[in-house]
Amino acid sequence: MSVRYNAVTQELVDKLIDIVGSKNVIWDDQERMENYAHDEVAEKEYAHMPDVVVKPADAKEISQIMKLANEYMIPVTPRAAGSGLSGGAVPVYGGILLSVERMNRILEIDKENLMAVVEPGVVTNEINNVIKDDGLFYAGYPMSLETCFIGGNVAENAGGGKAIKYGVTGRYIYGLEMVMPTGEIVEFGGKRVKDVTGYDIVHLMVGAEGTLGIYTKIVLKLLPLPTAAADLLVLFKDVDTAINVVPKVMTNGRIIPTAIEFMDESSFKASCQYLNETIPVAEAGAMLLIEIDGENKELVESEYETIGELCIANGAIEVYVADNYTTIERIWKIRRNVAEAFKVVSPHQSLEDIVVPISNIPDFVRGLAEIIDKYDVPIPCYGHAGDGNLHATVVKNPDFTMERWHEILPKVLTEMYELTAQLGGTISGEHGIGSKRKHYMRLVMNEDQLNVMRRIKKALDPNNILNPGKIFDME
Amino acid sequence: MSVRYNAVTQELVDKLIDIVGSKNVIWDDQERMENYAHDEVAEKEYAHMPDVVVKPADAKEISQIMKLANEYMIPVTPRAAGSGLSGGAVPVYGGILLSVERMNRILEIDKENLMAVVEPGVVTNEINNVIKDDGLFYAGYPMSLETCFIGGNVAENAGGGKAIKYGVTGRYIYGLEMVMPTGEIVEFGGKRVKDVTGYDIVHLMVGAEGTLGIYTKIVLKLLPLPTAAADLLVLFKDVDTAINVVPKVMTNGRIIPTAIEFMDESSFKASCQYLNETIPVAEAGAMLLIEIDGENKELVESEYETIGELCIANGAIEVYVADNYTTIERIWKIRRNVAEAFKVVSPHQSLEDIVVPISNIPDFVRGLAEIIDKYDVPIPCYGHAGDGNLHATVVKNPDFTMERWHEILPKVLTEMYELTAQLGGTISGEHGIGSKRKHYMRLVMNEDQLNVMRRIKKALDPNNILNPGKIFDME
Repeated sequence: MSVRYNAVTQELVDKLIDIVGSKNVIWDDQERMENYAHDEVAEKEYAHMPDVVVKPADAKEISQIMKLANEYMIPVTPRAAGSGLSGGAVPVYGGILLSVERMNRILEIDKENLMAVVEPGVVTNEINNVIKDDGLFYAGYPMSLETCFIGGNVAENAGGGKAIKYGVTGRYIYGLEMVMPTGEIVEFGGKRVKDVTGYDIVHLMVGAEGTLGIYTKIVLKLLPLPTAAADLLVLFKDVDTAINVVPKVMTNGRIIPTAIEFMDESSFKASCQYLNETIPVAEAGAMLLIEIDGENKELVESEYETIGELCIANGAIEVYVADNYTTIERIWKIRRNVAEAFKVVSPHQSLEDIVVPISNIPDFVRGLAEIIDKYDVPIPCYGHAGDGNLHATVVKNPDFTMERWHEILPKVLTEMYELTAQLGGTISGEHGIGSKRKHYMRLVMNEDQLNVMRRIKKALDPNNILNPGKIFDME
Repeated sequence: MSVRYNAVTQELVDKLIDIVGSKNVIWDDQERMENYAHDEVAEKEYAHMPDVVVKPADAKEISQIMKLANEYMIPVTPRAAGSGLSGGAVPVYGGILLSVERMNRILEIDKENLMAVVEPGVVTNEINNVIKDDGLFYAGYPMSLETCFIGGNVAENAGGGKAIKYGVTGRYIYGLEMVMPTGEIVEFGGKRVKDVTGYDIVHLMVGAEGTLGIYTKIVLKLLPLPTAAADLLVLFKDVDTAINVVPKVMTNGRIIPTAIEFMDESSFKASCQYLNETIPVAEAGAMLLIEIDGENKELVESEYETIGELCIANGAIEVYVADNYTTIERIWKIRRNVAEAFKVVSPHQSLEDIVVPISNIPDFVRGLAEIIDKYDVPIPCYGHAGDGNLHATVVKNPDFTMERWHEILPKVLTEMYELTAQLGGTISGEHGIGSKRKHYMRLVMNEDQLNVMRRIKKALDPNNILNPGKIFDME
């Protein structure tokens, strides 16, 4: 199926204004539209200007917009906060950019059922701010939680720092009201802990990157807020020794930590240097950051002692404990600033998101070292070891010209993804495919697998109107 | 789309024998085929004989069978252990019954990644028997775990007694190899804790009741085995007081129990009488059975004390603690024998599986009392209160003729389901729709919702070959 869309005309814009009101349409104003042309992907080539931006107030308006778009054959790209990392919210074929920014209400906090009902434009962390005094929390924890919208989290099935214990976004999505690509407003799921009434449409929609429907109401499960937490910063002589400890924490230690973050030598050394951090790390070749939380201090203490002893018994050089907010923050700062630290080397980077079975992390890191040597680029490797999800980040060698960088980057990515696939892994754990990784899908999926997805897309969006050009091409 | 299938001929049977071998085909032997004509639904009208039974050994054979079935236009009904409760494994249009009973190998226990890879015909509890010495367990816990197959659990997205803490089957399914209705062998997911590479086909397939694909390999997540457990049996004067405690355990108590089971007065009194159980329950109008587990005895003790105090402070009449295997078993026996106890009243029963938001359980039980009065039938109500999932069971009044029973049952079910829908609930929490509840789907879903499912089914199974007549009709 070739993509044949029509141009956005004044006639269509007038109809959009009829639906959402003139102050909620941006048209012929390049400067204001520019904000909607990109997400947080650094590379400029993934940006694309929309022809018109609309900001609907509710499902009914979105339904009318989708019917109009099908009638006029105009693509519609839904957008939450635009903090994505795979180009998912970028209107790659122009057309209508549909922003949910006005749909930003927390509609209900249901303390009896431990559920919240929210609109897609709510900032994720706002939910936690509203419920923490009730002793509750929403366990989805993307690293961008202070700026991202919950609608975007659902679209990408966002992961983050606490997935090892709490799972990813999808585990907490119990119901969705949404507008289908053809304009019908439908609801699936609800405030029900179990539901096997027909297909699990809710979880087909979670992670569909806005290609199968536009969420208009989201029913979230809440949990009791843990009241105690502690972090361990553990130094190891090499990657193997560090990674071998990860499953042991869960099997021998019988503890599921909240987070097990990994940093390779280049990552934590760059970050520590960048932050002027004084932790002595000279001997270390790998670092784990292990967080535990629980309902009381004694339990957390006994758990971090178990984990600390287990690390030492399995070859750790040093274990630092942080059990108060200040030291916990100090430790996490090292983890969060790896990307920033490498921007000193070069602003040109490709932030990757590969995932492998946990036990294959050492093989991945070894294979990565060969790619680094072969192409002479730094690729710091860090991320969510407890999930096997590593944000290997290809950084431009400052000696390279931009031409050289653009020439080698696809080769580096192809080799990295092939290595990942050989190790039973895949190319995205939490950032999504979007437009950025679409052309690499064939490295991890064959035509039969892609066709299962294409058939579903075609069945629900026969005109390929909603967020086209993402995940896979239809032809 | 009207259902137009062809008859099974000797020619087709010969081709099936070529694929799986003659000893794995049952044909023209009514007695042996009868075993494959029903599941555990009591009512005879939901049974239907297959025309031929085949027992393939692997995905390749299943692929050939599916291609043949499409060519000859013969329906194929997949079957695991046949322990289902909604007619999902019954060949309602005859044709080919495809049993996975020979595909019963545990292929791999991967202790480093905390994953197991199994075939669909493995008995669920066998997995736990194999891994318990390694300190691991599989957290799916359907009540039939000693006889059901894991493939059936995946097809129904089985729930069970531990869903409040551990979630239902779907949470532990990380990868599937399966044969599509059109015969392609595809794999989705794998030993990866996170994966957002394209649509979440794995969780579309979980709970699809064998209508979208036949699982041939299942990748399961394992957890560290909790080493301590305790149960509380708590008596309340009425349903409201009992149910009000349920969310408080999680919010005020900050504890997520393994199970919170509910029994109404008629349920536990019938069961206690049936078992000659001596717990004095005369004063009680409702009962909760609360289980907690954890990594050590002290933690479990401190948690059951918290919960016990909370129950007493919120109106419990009495709290009995069971912290050893014998007394825990004694308590669970009361819960497990409710259905058996009512068989003394009548063998004719309709075991239901409604689910409502937890806070609406008292309203449901009140509404149910009106239905009981109106139709003069006993409907004991018990089940998974922590999930809002109640197995209200309509029992034939022994004074009724069978004609009267068949006349009133659909009316009772319709009123019960309408009540459920009004309370934000739905008609199946864990047993599935199958053929048994198909005709009631319109009480909880409109045509737009059903059409989303139909379009997906049609896209993946254009000839409606795989398990037709389940969940919804295609026309």
